[in-house]
Amino acid sequence: MLQPNSRDELVFLPLGGSGEIGMNFNAYGFGPPSRRKWIILDCGVLFGREADTPGVDVIMPDIRFLAEQADNVLGIVATHAHEDHIGAIGLLWPMLKCPIYATPFTAILIEGKLEEQGLRERAKVKKVPLGGSLTLGPFQLDFISITHSIPEPNLVAIRTPLGVVAHTGDWKIDPEPMLGEVTDAAAIEKLGDEGVLALVCDSTNALQAGHSGSEVKVRDSLIELIGTLKGRIAVTAFASNVARLSSIGEAARRSKRKIALVGRSMHKMVQAAKDTGYLKDFPPLLDEADAADLPARQVLYLVTGSQGEPRAALARIASGNHPNVHLGKGDAVVFSSRIIPGNELPIFALHNELSALGVEVLTEQDHFVHVSGHPARDELTQMYRWTRPRIAVPVHGELRHMAEHARLAKSLQVPEALVPQNGQLYRLAPGPAELIDEVPSGRVHLDGRVLVGEGEGLTKARRAMAFAGLIAITLVVDSKGRVCAEPAILLEGIPKPVHEAIRTAVDDVTRRTKRADPDELAESVRRAARRAAHDAWGKKPITRVTVVET
Amino acid sequence: MLQPNSRDELVFLPLGGSGEIGMNFNAYGFGPPSRRKWIILDCGVLFGREADTPGVDVIMPDIRFLAEQADNVLGIVATHAHEDHIGAIGLLWPMLKCPIYATPFTAILIEGKLEEQGLRERAKVKKVPLGGSLTLGPFQLDFISITHSIPEPNLVAIRTPLGVVAHTGDWKIDPEPMLGEVTDAAAIEKLGDEGVLALVCDSTNALQAGHSGSEVKVRDSLIELIGTLKGRIAVTAFASNVARLSSIGEAARRSKRKIALVGRSMHKMVQAAKDTGYLKDFPPLLDEADAADLPARQVLYLVTGSQGEPRAALARIASGNHPNVHLGKGDAVVFSSRIIPGNELPIFALHNELSALGVEVLTEQDHFVHVSGHPARDELTQMYRWTRPRIAVPVHGELRHMAEHARLAKSLQVPEALVPQNGQLYRLAPGPAELIDEVPSGRVHLDGRVLVGEGEGLTKARRAMAFAGLIAITLVVDSKGRVCAEPAILLEGIPKPVHEAIRTAVDDVTRRTKRADPDELAESVRRAARRAAHDAWGKKPITRVTVVET
Repeated sequence: MLQPNSRDELVFLPLGGSGEIGMNFNAYGFGPPSRRKWIILDCGVLFGREADTPGVDVIMPDIRFLAEQADNVLGIVATHAHEDHIGAIGLLWPMLKCPIYATPFTAILIEGKLEEQGLRERAKVKKVPLGGSLTLGPFQLDFISITHSIPEPNLVAIRTPLGVVAHTGDWKIDPEPMLGEVTDAAAIEKLGDEGVLALVCDSTNALQAGHSGSEVKVRDSLIELIGTLKGRIAVTAFASNVARLSSIGEAARRSKRKIALVGRSMHKMVQAAKDTGYLKDFPPLLDEADAADLPARQVLYLVTGSQGEPRAALARIASGNHPNVHLGKGDAVVFSSRIIPGNELPIFALHNELSALGVEVLTEQDHFVHVSGHPARDELTQMYRWTRPRIAVPVHGELRHMAEHARLAKSLQVPEALVPQNGQLYRLAPGPAELIDEVPSGRVHLDGRVLVGEGEGLTKARRAMAFAGLIAITLVVDSKGRVCAEPAILLEGIPKPVHEAIRTAVDDVTRRTKRADPDELAESVRRAARRAAHDAWGKKPITRVTVVET
Repeated sequence: MLQPNSRDELVFLPLGGSGEIGMNFNAYGFGPPSRRKWIILDCGVLFGREADTPGVDVIMPDIRFLAEQADNVLGIVATHAHEDHIGAIGLLWPMLKCPIYATPFTAILIEGKLEEQGLRERAKVKKVPLGGSLTLGPFQLDFISITHSIPEPNLVAIRTPLGVVAHTGDWKIDPEPMLGEVTDAAAIEKLGDEGVLALVCDSTNALQAGHSGSEVKVRDSLIELIGTLKGRIAVTAFASNVARLSSIGEAARRSKRKIALVGRSMHKMVQAAKDTGYLKDFPPLLDEADAADLPARQVLYLVTGSQGEPRAALARIASGNHPNVHLGKGDAVVFSSRIIPGNELPIFALHNELSALGVEVLTEQDHFVHVSGHPARDELTQMYRWTRPRIAVPVHGELRHMAEHARLAKSLQVPEALVPQNGQLYRLAPGPAELIDEVPSGRVHLDGRVLVGEGEGLTKARRAMAFAGLIAITLVVDSKGRVCAEPAILLEGIPKPVHEAIRTAVDDVTRRTKRADPDELAESVRRAARRAAHDAWGKKPITRVTVVET
């Protein structure tokens, strides 16, 4: 290990995921302030929502601060393959052009993302074995296996000349995770014995008392539940939760049902899992079209769309629009998943559609069919006992989760607890942890196929139209500035009874104005139209006036 | 009681609230099919949501079927004063012009709504005493006191020559409701002894096992919790939950805090409660501005905005924009309320803002500070035991709740269980219950100040603009159909890098076209612009082309 120079600092910079659920992006810097070398832990997306960001599929962090010093970025390290940890790699890599490091299962899925962006040849994913190590400049990284709701999650121990950071990624403690390694408690405890400077840790369930629960219990419960059902069964779960797929596979085998995968990501994940040596005992698969020919009690569909995604397989099944899968009275759908906050209404809408078909809907509200992949308070406490850090750095959560996580850490006698927000640059060492800078940060939208900064106001402009519609008026004037044609008035998203008031107001102004400066004319017409709309409707539409000279 | 004529029928028609949460509107008809007399039980609204209905404040049922026979509508009967039961009375009354009946507390709040619409002189609210009766044509109505999360909820027993319907309204069983009457079990059981044809019943919590819990337990828990807090406290609750306000008042008194009401509906509800004889023991109130001068530990603010409503008091406090109420480190906000599904994200955003101020956030997730006002399964079971109806008619819920409620009723050996949907006309008697008609139904939006039918597609058009923006092009042509000026191109909500492609495409077409029919020209330009946007962006904006002839 190098000895630190007297001007060296170890700094931490979250650019995503701190203060929000999703788009995790954490950077660590080492060196003197003017010549820091950086590594990036995770590079994820957040999904857009119609209420906030209509027309935006995915949202990612604004990483211009690091992009401007891309030569000093030594690599992107992925802790695991969830979209909120790797989803932006394909989109943001061209701004960084650095190597990518991941364990085999995660690497396969990252390669798929690079392929989609046509970057497969240029961007290289270097595979790290489970429990492997890696040196990137001043950072020495050890991958420690941990448990989560996807294969191959890792805690990354980041050793630097100024101390060791334990970066948990997403995790839980499950002595019987059904698939993959159990959390390597011995390795983590050993890290604690060495001395941990900072624990940078998942806050998702910091408000949940107790323990997240074990996957093996879910398996047993699914075996029992599925054994009682007589008709067709569709089970929906996160496709990346390969341990759950395995549990469902076991339940299918026990009840003598054949499995058909339905939905693109279900096929993709099962393939990636098999390619990396998982799901070896998975029952043989049936094509979804062939499954329809089997007796109802011999079929189990494993289906995407547990979050009510409108284009996913389950939404199409529920609306009766799936080409191969048809459910009805006597059949059942099991939601072996949680509701991601914000998805309540689309998910309940699915439940309602299925109820209308006569399908029974079984969820974690009424049956034990899901456990979380994130640590509840007892597990967090255990992690602090193992690592005994000097500094608690809650990440991966909204502020309410992170604030509570920091309170918990303080109650466990961790000397320092931060609540870092995106863009805040903290010095972790030397000396006490301190906020030393705020760097440009924010969000970038993938809007259609174009990357647009949130600050450009595009979705805000569209939301304004969604609220109060648009008035677009074109006035044609002659060379002397006289209006020489009927004004062209486009009214979009405005109730019919209001149209007449707007047209009359525009006509009044244009008729009254004999000759005017085009800008003044446009402004008078704009104000008159807007006022008329407000008087008749109570809302002020976006109003644009163009003057064309002939 | 009249004897039924051989052609008489008793029918049930939900026009709102069946298959959705909110805008409850149920009609009962009696008489021969051609000359039915109607009564309406409740007339509520549903609140608009930006994702589905941007720019719409409230949504109400389409009641044209009854409006067209308004002369046969004998009255609107309100079971209680929640917005989803009375919120549309002021807006829809002009289509019906019938008398309105309600108990005193409910009547005051309805009068306020009529006042807002300038209808106070024309529309009359007739007060029914608690436990009172009423005859409307062939319907004889008995009000039976019940418990819910607002003063004066009623089960209405509707006696007709063809049998008795028990219409529950919203209810729960609470032997210690803190305020108002307990559920009048004896009266309901007596009804059951007489013989109940149909029980038309609240389905909200049909998926919840057990019992809703007692308000007195919430009071005790609030007294304890508030006793432990040292700084300023703000408690947010539904203003209409007067029993809860009373519990909070008691907790304030015990911890020697003075109460200041914050928010318009808090003042309105407390006034209505006092005017009708409730809240007699409520502690004296302090003005919100004066409260700021008291020591922190002597203040308790009772605040509107528990659902994250952006213009409510709590949202303004959390964002630091309230003129008189300022909270910070050491202070606490208690959410003594549930999360209405769909409001998760705005409520969590409030929690995050408060956390950022250093305020502690206490909710029903971590403390016992709320019980529901709706019956869980044990209470539903009790109601079926009391009434022993021939027909179960679940209402007031989404389909998933109503389907489960019907299953529960069947399991309790109710002979017939319906799952009625809005617009479905069921004959309840004579003979077995039967769907006999589907009448026009749907939703009407209050869009600004204008009522707009959902079917008119206005919010759909605005959502389309929110998704992909708008292209508005005006072409000026001379008398020979030649384009004689630069095209006016307005691009709204479209990313800058896409603009050039659209402009070039429009120019190409206009330049190429020497002379054309205006409609053909417009269509070529429209298609070219849309195609260019799609090629450059992956989305197709709404595209409008107007041709102006000079």
